[in-house]
Amino acid sequence: MAHIDLPEHLPGITGPLQFRPQTGEALSHLAQTLLRGNSPLKAAERELIAAYVSGLNECAFCHRSHAAAARSLFGVERSVVDAVVRDLDSAPIGQKMKALLRIAAKVQQGGRNVAPEDIAAARMYGADDVEIHDTVLVAAAFCMYNRYVDGLATWAPEDGPVYDAMGDHLAAEGYGAANRNA
Amino acid sequence: MAHIDLPEHLPGITGPLQFRPQTGEALSHLAQTLLRGNSPLKAAERELIAAYVSGLNECAFCHRSHAAAARSLFGVERSVVDAVVRDLDSAPIGQKMKALLRIAAKVQQGGRNVAPEDIAAARMYGADDVEIHDTVLVAAAFCMYNRYVDGLATWAPEDGPVYDAMGDHLAAEGYGAANRNA
Repeated sequence: MAHIDLPEHLPGITGPLQFRPQTGEALSHLAQTLLRGNSPLKAAERELIAAYVSGLNECAFCHRSHAAAARSLFGVERSVVDAVVRDLDSAPIGQKMKALLRIAAKVQQGGRNVAPEDIAAARMYGADDVEIHDTVLVAAAFCMYNRYVDGLATWAPEDGPVYDAMGDHLAAEGYGAANRNA
Repeated sequence: MAHIDLPEHLPGITGPLQFRPQTGEALSHLAQTLLRGNSPLKAAERELIAAYVSGLNECAFCHRSHAAAARSLFGVERSVVDAVVRDLDSAPIGQKMKALLRIAAKVQQGGRNVAPEDIAAARMYGADDVEIHDTVLVAAAFCMYNRYVDGLATWAPEDGPVYDAMGDHLAAEGYGAANRNA
């Protein structure tokens, strides 16, 4: 049972977003900006960072839903998502993305854990300032969303097809608040 | 030196906000909503949660600037801010606020650390669902802002009067993006 009186039928973050529409709007607008706004990183790559960090934070709802969104966006390359979650080092993705995911893992531990060597490794494989910035910010943001979802003890559906539908929806529609002037 | 090429004269989060205006706007809008929007918690209390969590995350810029904002907003009771940072148990604040700050400290460790007993303690001293929600979300949000600021290795001025001016400014003007429809 959640720590506060949330709408019972809504899983994960969707309960708190509806419980407090004013903060919900700002959180959705941020998610839309981070995960679907202009960036040198593809939406699929940003969802992968979100899923990866949420896995490190052991936030079941966020991990499963963003992994599903990443799979949907990667399309035929969807198997990379589970490969990254299983073992980053051996996953069949480019060295730049691996280096960015290693930065994301450092951010998850704490901002001060990101070392100049982590940044240098990403640059060596071609990452630029905006890619590094967006990686740090997406990773940091999921340290918020994960704590919000679990700090209120929301419920998560068991892993399964329900997340595939959620992922397809997030891939196609994003996070709302899309028509705002920003 | 910061990990990416930020405007050198801008300390803490202000560099990254200017470096990436699109994400900066969404982050400022969220801060304004969380710290100045409608809430049963006073702005001073929310700034205190922000300062407290930022201290736990050892984010010097965020801790000093939000402690200064909290002092400015507490006015004649400004000494409570440093008392809370020094030692929550003995600080001269109400039991409800102490219980909420203990929840914030659990969120800082990870969302799953918040226990039913932590929530029950806050309720015993009169905290309602919205106060608990807002506490969890402000604490979670500063786990993002702190990681953003430190994950990019931004610089922080030495502690001193520069933060008093910053705190007075934040107390009076908030975080911009105030005129948006939300």
